[in-house]
Amino acid sequence: MMTFTAPVTEQLFVLKHITGIDELSAHPRFADASPDMVEAIVGGIGEFAAAEFYPLRRIGDTVGARLIDGQVVMPEGFVDAYKAYVANGWGSINAPSDFGGQGLPFSLATVALDSLGAANMAFALCPILSVGSIEAINHHGSDAQKAMFLPKLSTGEWTGTMNLTEPQAGSDVGALKSTATPRGDGTYQIKGQKIYISFGDHDMAGNIVHLVLARTPDAPAGTKGISLFLVPKYRVNEGGSLGERNDIKVVSIEHKMGINASPTCVLAFGDEGDCIGELIGPEFGGMRAMFTMMNNARLNVGLEGVQIAEAATQKAVAFARDRVQSVRAGGTSRDSVAIVEHPDVRRMLMRMKAGTQAIRALLYCASGFVDRAALGIDGAQEMVDLLTPLAKTYGTDMGSEIASLGIQVHGGMGFIEETGAAQLYRDIRIAAIYEGTNGIQAADLVGRKLGMRGGDAVREHLARIGQVAGEHAGLKALAGACTEVTEWMIGSASTDDKLAGSYPFTTMMAVATCGALMAKQLRVAEAEGGNTPFLKAKIAACRYYLDVMVPEALSLKGSAMAGAELLYALDADGLAI
Amino acid sequence: MMTFTAPVTEQLFVLKHITGIDELSAHPRFADASPDMVEAIVGGIGEFAAAEFYPLRRIGDTVGARLIDGQVVMPEGFVDAYKAYVANGWGSINAPSDFGGQGLPFSLATVALDSLGAANMAFALCPILSVGSIEAINHHGSDAQKAMFLPKLSTGEWTGTMNLTEPQAGSDVGALKSTATPRGDGTYQIKGQKIYISFGDHDMAGNIVHLVLARTPDAPAGTKGISLFLVPKYRVNEGGSLGERNDIKVVSIEHKMGINASPTCVLAFGDEGDCIGELIGPEFGGMRAMFTMMNNARLNVGLEGVQIAEAATQKAVAFARDRVQSVRAGGTSRDSVAIVEHPDVRRMLMRMKAGTQAIRALLYCASGFVDRAALGIDGAQEMVDLLTPLAKTYGTDMGSEIASLGIQVHGGMGFIEETGAAQLYRDIRIAAIYEGTNGIQAADLVGRKLGMRGGDAVREHLARIGQVAGEHAGLKALAGACTEVTEWMIGSASTDDKLAGSYPFTTMMAVATCGALMAKQLRVAEAEGGNTPFLKAKIAACRYYLDVMVPEALSLKGSAMAGAELLYALDADGLAI
Repeated sequence: MMTFTAPVTEQLFVLKHITGIDELSAHPRFADASPDMVEAIVGGIGEFAAAEFYPLRRIGDTVGARLIDGQVVMPEGFVDAYKAYVANGWGSINAPSDFGGQGLPFSLATVALDSLGAANMAFALCPILSVGSIEAINHHGSDAQKAMFLPKLSTGEWTGTMNLTEPQAGSDVGALKSTATPRGDGTYQIKGQKIYISFGDHDMAGNIVHLVLARTPDAPAGTKGISLFLVPKYRVNEGGSLGERNDIKVVSIEHKMGINASPTCVLAFGDEGDCIGELIGPEFGGMRAMFTMMNNARLNVGLEGVQIAEAATQKAVAFARDRVQSVRAGGTSRDSVAIVEHPDVRRMLMRMKAGTQAIRALLYCASGFVDRAALGIDGAQEMVDLLTPLAKTYGTDMGSEIASLGIQVHGGMGFIEETGAAQLYRDIRIAAIYEGTNGIQAADLVGRKLGMRGGDAVREHLARIGQVAGEHAGLKALAGACTEVTEWMIGSASTDDKLAGSYPFTTMMAVATCGALMAKQLRVAEAEGGNTPFLKAKIAACRYYLDVMVPEALSLKGSAMAGAELLYALDADGLAI
Repeated sequence: MMTFTAPVTEQLFVLKHITGIDELSAHPRFADASPDMVEAIVGGIGEFAAAEFYPLRRIGDTVGARLIDGQVVMPEGFVDAYKAYVANGWGSINAPSDFGGQGLPFSLATVALDSLGAANMAFALCPILSVGSIEAINHHGSDAQKAMFLPKLSTGEWTGTMNLTEPQAGSDVGALKSTATPRGDGTYQIKGQKIYISFGDHDMAGNIVHLVLARTPDAPAGTKGISLFLVPKYRVNEGGSLGERNDIKVVSIEHKMGINASPTCVLAFGDEGDCIGELIGPEFGGMRAMFTMMNNARLNVGLEGVQIAEAATQKAVAFARDRVQSVRAGGTSRDSVAIVEHPDVRRMLMRMKAGTQAIRALLYCASGFVDRAALGIDGAQEMVDLLTPLAKTYGTDMGSEIASLGIQVHGGMGFIEETGAAQLYRDIRIAAIYEGTNGIQAADLVGRKLGMRGGDAVREHLARIGQVAGEHAGLKALAGACTEVTEWMIGSASTDDKLAGSYPFTTMMAVATCGALMAKQLRVAEAEGGNTPFLKAKIAACRYYLDVMVPEALSLKGSAMAGAELLYALDADGLAI
């Protein structure tokens, strides 16, 4: 019954006015991202996502990835759709042009992922992992490693994984115990068990390149002693042909609440003592390489919020227009109307639309700064660093809220699995957890990012928001509240106080940033005359966000500045009462 | 690994200081509810729930209720546990004493359901439906009907169902089409299909008493033409013995996101033209009877929020005390600590504890007024009417929020089904939908309840909150904001404006009410010296709620008074862009 349509007009509008795609393509490196090319890519990936990824959303959930005789088997249709994805070049948009990629802006890859994931979030997770591997190898690998692995990863013929977590080492990466012992020929013997490895095995690609954090003999304890290793599923011969299988076992795959098409593997490396890997970057350079690998992944996880929000909103609007129930209160007609006409249903739909557009703007804005940072533009990396925790946290939280509203609009049918609204709600819930829990992101904001240039990075960002705010009183007030919290945190607040308020502060900062991006879009839409259906809808969504949703974040100031005392009034025993 | 313990000390504290159980037992009708008896019941049901219902939580989810050869079969263990529930008399606490019940306060039945549902929400839903049937038959049935059906329903030997919804008639009950045709002997021929019938069939009880809304021939359109019919699964002979099966078919059971142990049936009445039912109450009295049936059910659904919040909090606290991860930021030790020591984890746990206690207080308070209304005490029914939409909406929303925090505390493990945190999140999501969606509750608040005594009922309630607020500035401000919205809604706001702001207003009113109940408990705990572990924990939770959570609701004032204009800036086509 339902179909999915990628929001191409919206994506192009945000790319133009928020990302600043024209400014990017003015640089020689991104000259290929001409307006025609951008339009072709955004339109093309939208059609591809709707035609190839979307029809697999439900089978991905009901059948899911299965472990059969030690191999992960994807549900019917996934292998063909993935091969089409590779054949069409959708995987290589942002991959390095020296190694088979198209070298286009990360911003364009963001749009591609927006459409793919809105069609099928679990499926689109696979490319996200590959991107992380590409980044890590490209930044930290040797020339030989780049030449051997990047071309196949860039096209998507091979996929990549990130192997960080072990049972005792989750957020605390430094606690990991996997080992890497020199074999005397420059390679290493890898041994250890890794958990939560997304797409740790599957049958869609010729090879899987595992990037594994492990400790060399006599490495110092904690994060300082960690190194990154490349451990392929199939060993790769000199000429690039595939050799024998490496000693990597899929112990099990997790039974999860959602994203069932994404196999979450427990992998055993070197159980038979024959797992060979090679060092990426210097010994003990593992943490730096990990951050390279994870950084854009954090943005891409924030983008999952946008994906699900878009999918949930489309579904809810279609249902609300179709479902006739009850007369319009206060009206004169006794005829029942489509529920889209009822005020509280409208409230839910407008919230969904405005929230979706706000987080899309935030993610597309951040992706623009990733590209500027790649161009070496002053201050761009600082903006990426600042926006990443905001985008990851608020993007995923808003995605969950919008998926929940989507269920609510459907009423009883929302709770029935066949409708599909429930799947979106289940799928998105992981996004607030993986790639660094949202709590870790908030700690990163107050712990690291707030201190950038002694606080001036945040101060200047807030000042810019204040300027954009103009006549939007709520946004002005929120920027002021953020400044107040910022100065308190930089000033007198203790570490505990800062961490105690970190989460509400992160939300406030994200809403203020989104508010500014919505104010900007509102201005553009009005300047363009505001009289096409798209511009009218854009104006309505921006106004709703600015007038209703932005002011709601104001009252988080109290929580952000409440301090830690209330949280430690009880000891752990007291909490258990 | 996990076990569940009913929060007996907390339950007794709230029963005493919020419900006012001693005041109730001072009335002859509730004289049996002596302090000893209350303690015995609360302790006893807590132990029973932990021992019999809790171990079935997971199998209820993984195996669930199944439809086999036209009959619903419950997962292994449910039949025995249900029989023990009946044998122990837990089902009959509040059932009418004239018909085999114990005639104890509804408040006590509320505590029983609190523990049963915290142990196993899906299972505890079955008794909720029976209670609705008992109420409807007791208030609207003939003496003969009462004598024939109430004794078995009161003990739980038979269970009851509510049959309202049809595919085209959900929130709009008046659109239902099922028919009831007189058979000439005082009984009726029932025909029609009903959907979303919880426990519409199962194998735990000797008979199932379906209460079915249907239309008699030539009935007026809409809700005015609806009557209520009693349609048993097995016909009942004069002497009370069971006769032959009625013509009721289980067409299917739904595949839902949660509460899988609760069979949600599609029932076909009279497919073979042989479904016999009898009228309950007068012809066309269906809506009144339905409200009797649903009213306490709404409170009991609000209570599901408390159940899940309690279960999620216990699970999260236990996990956070057990899971060691990372050193304490800002501390001097380099040893990793249990995550319960990290500020943001504390924030989540305190929010969970405070939120759980707040909604428990709200539900227990409302149940006390149900008992006072039964005693005919002045103004009590008005309080039930006012508190019901608040308790249903905020109870279920807070339950969902707390279940989500529970997942987050678990990190990656929260998304793995075996942990059990995800089940709580999936289970509770239905509660905001059934028994009148939360949007319908909000419409009820601004449409009906706000107008009680020209607004004075709400005004007086808010004035009392203002008085209790004392030195709690946030609560005082919130009561003031509620008053402002109230006066605007009663005064100049249009129907659309009121409905547009109904949901945020409902939340504000609920938080203000909870704030007052937490302030009251704080005062009692301090007056009692505040030096037992329980009282210390109570004080900390009340302070957290009052200082951090209450002020957050303040900023909803803007949304509540935003008016409908922003919501209708787009037409339905515009929303679909």
